[in-house]
Amino acid sequence: MTTRSSTPPPQSQLGQQLAADIPGLEVQDLPEILDAHSRDHTEDLQFLPDLVALPNSTSQVSALLAWANERRIPVTAAGAWTGLSGGALAVKGGISLSTKRLNRMVKIDELNHQLVVQPGVIVQEMQEAVQAKGLFYAVDPASRGTCTIGGNLAENSGGPRAVKYGVTKDWVLNLEVVLADGTVIQTGANTLKNSTGYNTTQLMVGSEGTLGIITEATLKLLPWPKFNALLLVPFADPKDACRAVAGIFQDGNQPSALEFMERAAIELAMDFTGDRQLPLSSDTAAHLLIEVDGFREEDLMPQLERLAQTLERFDAGEPLMAMDSAGKDQLWNLRRKVGEAVKAHSTYKEEDTVVPRGHLPELLAAIKQTGSEYGFESICYGHAGDGNLHVNILKGELSIAVWEQTLPEAIRAIFQKVVSLGGTISGEHGIGWVQKPYMDIRFSPAELALQRRIKDAFDPVHTLNPDKILP
Amino acid sequence: MTTRSSTPPPQSQLGQQLAADIPGLEVQDLPEILDAHSRDHTEDLQFLPDLVALPNSTSQVSALLAWANERRIPVTAAGAWTGLSGGALAVKGGISLSTKRLNRMVKIDELNHQLVVQPGVIVQEMQEAVQAKGLFYAVDPASRGTCTIGGNLAENSGGPRAVKYGVTKDWVLNLEVVLADGTVIQTGANTLKNSTGYNTTQLMVGSEGTLGIITEATLKLLPWPKFNALLLVPFADPKDACRAVAGIFQDGNQPSALEFMERAAIELAMDFTGDRQLPLSSDTAAHLLIEVDGFREEDLMPQLERLAQTLERFDAGEPLMAMDSAGKDQLWNLRRKVGEAVKAHSTYKEEDTVVPRGHLPELLAAIKQTGSEYGFESICYGHAGDGNLHVNILKGELSIAVWEQTLPEAIRAIFQKVVSLGGTISGEHGIGWVQKPYMDIRFSPAELALQRRIKDAFDPVHTLNPDKILP
Repeated sequence: MTTRSSTPPPQSQLGQQLAADIPGLEVQDLPEILDAHSRDHTEDLQFLPDLVALPNSTSQVSALLAWANERRIPVTAAGAWTGLSGGALAVKGGISLSTKRLNRMVKIDELNHQLVVQPGVIVQEMQEAVQAKGLFYAVDPASRGTCTIGGNLAENSGGPRAVKYGVTKDWVLNLEVVLADGTVIQTGANTLKNSTGYNTTQLMVGSEGTLGIITEATLKLLPWPKFNALLLVPFADPKDACRAVAGIFQDGNQPSALEFMERAAIELAMDFTGDRQLPLSSDTAAHLLIEVDGFREEDLMPQLERLAQTLERFDAGEPLMAMDSAGKDQLWNLRRKVGEAVKAHSTYKEEDTVVPRGHLPELLAAIKQTGSEYGFESICYGHAGDGNLHVNILKGELSIAVWEQTLPEAIRAIFQKVVSLGGTISGEHGIGWVQKPYMDIRFSPAELALQRRIKDAFDPVHTLNPDKILP
Repeated sequence: MTTRSSTPPPQSQLGQQLAADIPGLEVQDLPEILDAHSRDHTEDLQFLPDLVALPNSTSQVSALLAWANERRIPVTAAGAWTGLSGGALAVKGGISLSTKRLNRMVKIDELNHQLVVQPGVIVQEMQEAVQAKGLFYAVDPASRGTCTIGGNLAENSGGPRAVKYGVTKDWVLNLEVVLADGTVIQTGANTLKNSTGYNTTQLMVGSEGTLGIITEATLKLLPWPKFNALLLVPFADPKDACRAVAGIFQDGNQPSALEFMERAAIELAMDFTGDRQLPLSSDTAAHLLIEVDGFREEDLMPQLERLAQTLERFDAGEPLMAMDSAGKDQLWNLRRKVGEAVKAHSTYKEEDTVVPRGHLPELLAAIKQTGSEYGFESICYGHAGDGNLHVNILKGELSIAVWEQTLPEAIRAIFQKVVSLGGTISGEHGIGWVQKPYMDIRFSPAELALQRRIKDAFDPVHTLNPDKILP
């Protein structure tokens, strides 16, 4: 009756008790397995859970949460460990709840343009499955080939296409959630409109597994805009690239992606991928990568022409245009690999800043100014159309003392600037563990107290992903 | 220093005390004023407040809420009294907080495509102000000429264009909110992306003034799609019209409005407006009103051609096309007046049902079937593209006993069908007072208990719009 993998049964007393109490639930605690469930893609973090549990159904999740809640044992959900804020790390030990076996695409509803999925489904697999039916799920974080929809829901992930199509939250109609005590609820309805009570759907999205565990999501889909074109636009001055971003929208363009990369970002990606075919003129200091899309091939050219007019106003260089899939894949691959390339190049810290997009020039200047003051180099890139700039601060030659003690001050200075521009301290990576110390920059004590009361309303004894988000 | 209207000072002891404690706050309690603040557009409801307060600043709202909270006096916010669920009615008496004097458009931010408004601004005035700058706020409830953005935020209002552009919640970036104890908070940031703590912005939208009072909203804007065309499409069988709705999207069309009207709806609107120019063939039983839009005039024709192909598949009659503004205004005016026309025709109850749009045919059949069983006539119309059907149940010849005692059973039967189809009991009107008895159809006891804990986290002593939403 119980299907188990070939992993040996749990060794610890706690693991044996859990396995005995919930027959059929896969429980693991080999040291190498705990180690494999102790790190995500955030720099420099490791926290070992005591156990790993791999439920394969909502009822197993429910039984597990009730069991843990009674015993005050922390439960932290994890998908594919691609997170960038430590959200999936069991910082208080306890149980790492892997969604690996909750990986069914339950239903593609072609009549209503909806998709029902379990949290462990890989985002790209989900996208390809609906595209095969002419449908479109737009949210595509750089990690989409490995990250799970559960992780995207937990962190409210974005990605390049968010600029036209919105972030994860904008695609969610309804969630099945297991609360801390094991109760199973639905948050919404499978409808495009809903004015029926409090919006607990949107409260769950981005809550990083601290309010409940999502076991099923109903997502909306759109018809697939099959056609697109991609432009890589060089600028001699990064400030001009940043200024152009707001200008593009002011001129009525609606790009389906609008990415910014400093020269160092694309250079590192070229080194990392070994793809050196791209012409990179010596006077290029930054690029915008701009995509337009449409339902018909003839929808593209008018958009490209309008874009060209805007770009001229901002001193752009000659764009490189990719219309065929090989060319587009090459450009997107370079963009997607920037994160890994920076990681391979140096110890770094990444801050996920976001401001109203018209303030990008001021943000970039402030980051560089802070870098000069504190003596660090930074590489900036990201989803400029959303005002979302990933700031990679490189350790380089900095001493460990400066890196660990002085740098948080510099980050604080950057975040203070972000907030003064109307922005916030995470656009799409979440707060998790690493941004928690900075929450007071964005939120007043009263605002943080309100968030704590919400946490208490969902999880009064704090067993769900304890010690995350709220300082 | 204090600017008062010519209304006399409050007569009641409570009113005099409030006016004395918060100098500058306009407080009214003349019987005719209390009467004018006792009804909205929901059928058959009247609840008198004890006082009307008209704060003109966030700090006055804050002082008022702190004052009322200390004294356990209910405070119910109200905009323009166009609500359709009784959300603004002071069902427990106390203070009716009018947003009439919080009516400033604080800022149109053309650089960032954002708008900052106070809650008392009229939606249509706001739309026209941003359109004058080439920008677009899409949400346009039928009452947009009189309703306020505060009311739209409170009820998460929709309207025809929601089918392409989303409902009120999809346009909100950040809110300034006064909590029950007078604390002023911000919920979000002025950014398109935000993964920074719990989404209290979306929790406030649609919460009908039960969690806090919104005193300022930052809304996003889009470039204005200036061009559109409108089709009125007749069907001999309403079921074909309903089936066509999902078909339109399955064929890849993206209408900017897709409305359904039974024949009786358009006939009543013609009677009510006196506009009888529309050809109405004897074999027409229902219409779809379909709008397409674009940034260029030449964007329209390909959309109309594609639509025509779909409509043929569903046995549509010859469409009437309006391309000039007089023709479009005429059609929209008839559609917008349906609600008032029904009201003028008969005592009625309106239910704001919503289902996944592919299930509209089953919903319409179930409504008519329930009508036969319980002996009532109904007129159905609404935002079919969103699966949102307004069901107007006519009193007609029904006895008061049947109307008051048997009808709730029939409504319950309809809502049960709605929920079994994946739908919910309010698409855009909110729960307020009148739908509260049906909340148990959509939500389990555990789900309702969770919503109650959220209410308690925001408003522990229940002074904000008490006795609404939750049964």
